[in-house]
Amino acid sequence: MSKNKRPALSEPEQAAGNGMLDRRLFLTGTAAAIGSAAMADHARAEALPVEPWMKTPGSPFVPYGQPSKYTTKVARVFASAPGTTGTGASRTPHHLLDGMITPNGLHFERHHSGIPDINPETHRLLIHGLVKRPLIYTLEALMRYPMESRIAFIECAGNSQLMYQKEPAQLGVQPIHGLLSCAEWTGVRLATLLEDAGVEARAQWIVAEGADAAGMSRSVPLEKAMGDALVAIYQNGEPVRPSNGYPMRLLLPGYEGNMNVKWLRRIKLTEGPVMTKDETSKYTMLQNDGKSLQFCFAQEAKSVITRPSPGLTMGAPGLYEITGLAWSGYGRIAKVDVSADGGASWAPAALQELVLPMAVTRFRLPWRWDGGPATLQSRATDDSGYVQPTRSKLIADRGARAVYHFNGIACWGVTQLGEVKHVYA
Amino acid sequence: MSKNKRPALSEPEQAAGNGMLDRRLFLTGTAAAIGSAAMADHARAEALPVEPWMKTPGSPFVPYGQPSKYTTKVARVFASAPGTTGTGASRTPHHLLDGMITPNGLHFERHHSGIPDINPETHRLLIHGLVKRPLIYTLEALMRYPMESRIAFIECAGNSQLMYQKEPAQLGVQPIHGLLSCAEWTGVRLATLLEDAGVEARAQWIVAEGADAAGMSRSVPLEKAMGDALVAIYQNGEPVRPSNGYPMRLLLPGYEGNMNVKWLRRIKLTEGPVMTKDETSKYTMLQNDGKSLQFCFAQEAKSVITRPSPGLTMGAPGLYEITGLAWSGYGRIAKVDVSADGGASWAPAALQELVLPMAVTRFRLPWRWDGGPATLQSRATDDSGYVQPTRSKLIADRGARAVYHFNGIACWGVTQLGEVKHVYA
Repeated sequence: MSKNKRPALSEPEQAAGNGMLDRRLFLTGTAAAIGSAAMADHARAEALPVEPWMKTPGSPFVPYGQPSKYTTKVARVFASAPGTTGTGASRTPHHLLDGMITPNGLHFERHHSGIPDINPETHRLLIHGLVKRPLIYTLEALMRYPMESRIAFIECAGNSQLMYQKEPAQLGVQPIHGLLSCAEWTGVRLATLLEDAGVEARAQWIVAEGADAAGMSRSVPLEKAMGDALVAIYQNGEPVRPSNGYPMRLLLPGYEGNMNVKWLRRIKLTEGPVMTKDETSKYTMLQNDGKSLQFCFAQEAKSVITRPSPGLTMGAPGLYEITGLAWSGYGRIAKVDVSADGGASWAPAALQELVLPMAVTRFRLPWRWDGGPATLQSRATDDSGYVQPTRSKLIADRGARAVYHFNGIACWGVTQLGEVKHVYA
Repeated sequence: MSKNKRPALSEPEQAAGNGMLDRRLFLTGTAAAIGSAAMADHARAEALPVEPWMKTPGSPFVPYGQPSKYTTKVARVFASAPGTTGTGASRTPHHLLDGMITPNGLHFERHHSGIPDINPETHRLLIHGLVKRPLIYTLEALMRYPMESRIAFIECAGNSQLMYQKEPAQLGVQPIHGLLSCAEWTGVRLATLLEDAGVEARAQWIVAEGADAAGMSRSVPLEKAMGDALVAIYQNGEPVRPSNGYPMRLLLPGYEGNMNVKWLRRIKLTEGPVMTKDETSKYTMLQNDGKSLQFCFAQEAKSVITRPSPGLTMGAPGLYEITGLAWSGYGRIAKVDVSADGGASWAPAALQELVLPMAVTRFRLPWRWDGGPATLQSRATDDSGYVQPTRSKLIADRGARAVYHFNGIACWGVTQLGEVKHVYA
């Protein structure tokens, strides 16, 4: 069967301009008719060659497995502040991943003084301040408490900050948007521990402190602490990784990453926020009038196309899947629209189950690339009705000096050579 | 507040005999009243000591992260056939995990000739046999197809086979029930590829073959292949691990592990099953009458308590959480009942969200251990109405020589010293 004999794509299957197809295309079994078979080679009459790895026994078992030696590019990239090795950030390679879970070895990191090497036998969690009974928990004591699991994203408030720049940074998903990851976290509800200690009526906030050399500390409203906050002990099933807070971290689903204090050692109940260095000198948003916004907790609805994206050069024209991630710290993703013509027209993407609150949602849409230029964009809407703004609207509202909470629409330009570049629409 | 002044547990809070409490206990805020605070120490007046890891900057970033050096026991155990290093199995340490996701480094393995070291550039997937157009796919070609993700358990058909023995093996969750794991798998629906190739009307089965030195091959009904089967490329977000089939594996949600062919290289469409060595000399169930059951595909509903379990010695009497996993290859878990008195009385456990078909479901129940002997059991019911049988009923029905598909109720005996042992009820 030659390509020429395949029926042409009929008009109704176009869901938006520049080749954007209906999200149900691959469910209707009509994809083969429009050329997906062209991606495979017709089998030759001879059998597949017997590769060397079929001729000798393979490798033995190991106690803790590792990735293939052929996937070394599937790794975090990182940068540290001058004179340090652990003050900085590492970023998740979402352009090389798929699904909703970030594996533990690739979860992004933001450390303020490296990764402490904590002995779980001597680590303690103190709950004190405005409580009836100050309490100290060992890890062993916490292990007897009832646990809960939730799949939740954590996003650094500084993620995507490069998009505040005047010119589009010539970088891809990982360096621009890689301070975002999503894992299944399991632990004890902080509310359970606070009830144990007995919260005094005057208490309205907590201060959470980490056991790193930076003593990272953040103030959190008591309402969140008594709500869906967890003292997480497990990350994707296994003990929390050192880079994510071993032996325990605070999880505040939807709130900016910095507040999800790692290596949690102390919770103090207070009347008000205590204005730690980590919520005054940093993690505030400078506006055009010279004033700063403080205590912007939840991450706003946002999305990014992970494939195609810079670094992933397109092959021959034809059918491709556009896929990416959408998330909101205010709830569930309700809709993701995708455009191939720079925002002139939009088609709704398929939202892959599971669509969970405070977790990333994977979206997917088939696209027939005709080999010409295209500008790919995605736009998330969450179940509060909030719609991800364009970059220019966000900057018009807030200015370009805010550093944090950038959630404007990102654009990837596709050239006729199939190169994918970061552009501003 | 001393222990003695706490109100005694009132009768209605008992959900079953020997201390089994209501599954909503920790949601009602009454847990503190019955002694959970006793698990924590009252804080001393002096501050927490400043530990050494707070005094110097911590470790630097690495491209691919690893677990803490303090969690080396959180590892697979494995055994190989005599004269081999890779023919055998490794098992997941569920007694040290929590949540529903098994991290990739700890996913169980069953290899028939070790782990092949496959170069993804030269690996091919051939689809041939009763098709209109035989096709060969590279990994790169597959990457353009639309993908789907599903969280699914894989269980080796031989999991828990030690429970066919006359006497209870003096082992714990990992060696007895560790051939079970659960991950988020992402890939291309096999149906999409089969539609590409064009299935001939006579085709009723497929044969799937792996690229390991054992040439592991299984026959699968076409209906399953056209249903929820995936050619999985990603495991918990990252490329499938070599030990799980890199660069691609077959995923048949709910079906016995052996059929989820790793290192997938060939799918042949056929009229009937081809009776490979892997479905005749193995993976058949010998019955008392000397005949064998063949082609038992789906794993029956089953559950196991992971904490407390052998190796996890109980501390002081008082409140504990009983937790474990339940799963069914026939659908969703509808109910898990838990007993602390050897099956004389049962209380319904809380099923943690997410409760997904063909995935493990985490169950939890608070238990007040009075320091006396107890026999802990869990019993799963799936949404087909099927109830996990007792061991004695399963053996009465099937005999004790079947090796595979053991899904009877498991029992952990708790002694007055707090030791936990494998027992038969």
